[in-house]
Amino acid sequence: MNSPLLLVGGGGHCIATLDVLESAGISIAGIIHGPDQPLEYICGYPPLGYDDNIPALRGKYNLALITVGQIKTPTIRKRLYTLLKKNNYDLATVISPCSTISQRTKVGEGTIIMHNVCINRNVTIGDNSIINTGSIVEHGCQIGNHCHISIGSVLCGNVSIGDGAFIGAGSVCREGIHIGENAVIGCGLRILFDIPPHKTIKSNVLSPLT
Amino acid sequence: MNSPLLLVGGGGHCIATLDVLESAGISIAGIIHGPDQPLEYICGYPPLGYDDNIPALRGKYNLALITVGQIKTPTIRKRLYTLLKKNNYDLATVISPCSTISQRTKVGEGTIIMHNVCINRNVTIGDNSIINTGSIVEHGCQIGNHCHISIGSVLCGNVSIGDGAFIGAGSVCREGIHIGENAVIGCGLRILFDIPPHKTIKSNVLSPLT
Amino acid sequence: MNSPLLLVGGGGHCIATLDVLESAGISIAGIIHGPDQPLEYICGYPPLGYDDNIPALRGKYNLALITVGQIKTPTIRKRLYTLLKKNNYDLATVISPCSTISQRTKVGEGTIIMHNVCINRNVTIGDNSIINTGSIVEHGCQIGNHCHISIGSVLCGNVSIGDGAFIGAGSVCREGIHIGENAVIGCGLRILFDIPPHKTIKSNVLSPLT
Repeated sequence: MNSPLLLVGGGGHCIATLDVLESAGISIAGIIHGPDQPLEYICGYPPLGYDDNIPALRGKYNLALITVGQIKTPTIRKRLYTLLKKNNYDLATVISPCSTISQRTKVGEGTIIMHNVCINRNVTIGDNSIINTGSIVEHGCQIGNHCHISIGSVLCGNVSIGDGAFIGAGSVCREGIHIGENAVIGCGLRILFDIPPHKTIKSNVLSPLT
Repeated sequence: MNSPLLLVGGGGHCIATLDVLESAGISIAGIIHGPDQPLEYICGYPPLGYDDNIPALRGKYNLALITVGQIKTPTIRKRLYTLLKKNNYDLATVISPCSTISQRTKVGEGTIIMHNVCINRNVTIGDNSIINTGSIVEHGCQIGNHCHISIGSVLCGNVSIGDGAFIGAGSVCREGIHIGENAVIGCGLRILFDIPPHKTIKSNVLSPLT
Repeated sequence: MNSPLLLVGGGGHCIATLDVLESAGISIAGIIHGPDQPLEYICGYPPLGYDDNIPALRGKYNLALITVGQIKTPTIRKRLYTLLKKNNYDLATVISPCSTISQRTKVGEGTIIMHNVCINRNVTIGDNSIINTGSIVEHGCQIGNHCHISIGSVLCGNVSIGDGAFIGAGSVCREGIHIGENAVIGCGLRILFDIPPHKTIKSNVLSPLT
């Protein structure tokens, strides 16, 4: 049986996540803070120490969720994921009850679907990803591990997103394109063609990148 | 009394539509496939042949919905609409239960409102149109027949959209403007002025077109 | 005990607001019209005169809502707000039941949250503001008085919006930026940096304004 959920990361994304967890009626143990944070209560939830408490807390809790935000790089979330798995934590899969998710969607462990998201049929989402508030993921999309699909972004049908990629708030990806692993798409952009891996995009992509 | 629904078109838009139909509890007979498709089951629904089976199937079914997607041109959807009407089919009007639709909205036959759409008061939508996932249609908009309002697009108040027009994903049309019939608006654009009929728009429209 | 709601303003925004009020089951007395409008019924609700009837109607009604739209300038809505307060009206706070609002959101008097809005945790919204259809307001945002966050716009986490500011339809404001008081952001823009007070923005802001 699952213990209350251990949250790893106490910044802005944690606060937004708390709202989703409370909506979904999920019991929360407390929060592991980042290295520069004071050990304070956040929204009423107790601090449970820093990252180096993660191994010891496994004796008490078996279920965790990474609540560090991911802006541009997935490095910290990937490191925490490895640390949690090494210590035999299960990672929660969380879906806001205020979202519209096709029953034919596969969502990996440690991934959270925030409020007002719509995910259509035959979508696959990997582990430890964030599908953020109000984003739209159309039929047939494939989203990798450690991705962040930011708020209000729009993925048309059959878009594929490589591991570790970031899609900025309010950006639109055209039907069928591929965003390479660890690519970073800025906010409010039109992406009409494939993006190579590790590429950072700061303006609209209207023709193929070579 | 209505028979189970006959779907005409078996591509990506059909798959997304199936999710809406199942959410709405609508009984589905099977799928008429496009000319290049193999006659395979789609999401568990049987193939019922190609377009030339439409007349014969009228003996068994009386209710149909066109589930061919519409990217840029409404030609195929218009042709199928004519074929179905000639064979005395009724066309279903489908509204996702995961959408917010004013009771003062008129929606024509053969039109589908997908998930997470919001349609405000005093809106009129014609026949055989697609109002796609997460789009916003504000008060007083007029949308014609055979239109496709693509995912995540935003129509401000009193926008009018001519027959056969296509509004790309994530595009925004300013209050009160008119998009001419069969115009094509690309994805992620800002349309601040009227667009003439049959015009294809690939960049932002910030001043009147002459 | 509250009387039926007096609406002040009978244009397009009033029509959209009526849909929200009816969804929320709020009793409506009728509509005070703008100076150039005929005194006609709107959507079945009776005209109750012009602005100069506001003092006399206080004998009959104690609760009002300003339903004049706000495009670019808050001047009219601010004037009506002052007039209503001077005459000891209470201003209604209205939240569409078709929206997702964190219980940790503070919403001021006279402010309306329209359909399909999502407001995350720790957001504060002032008085007499419009949070329009389908907009997203992320965790920690601060929105002032007499603001209009237009339809489908996206405010990332910890954005602050000064009194009287207007955010155009479908615009995106990056995490943590500040929009100055009475600033006007056009529709469909990417705002990546702070905007000074009283500034009108018609193109994307991709670097700091000096």
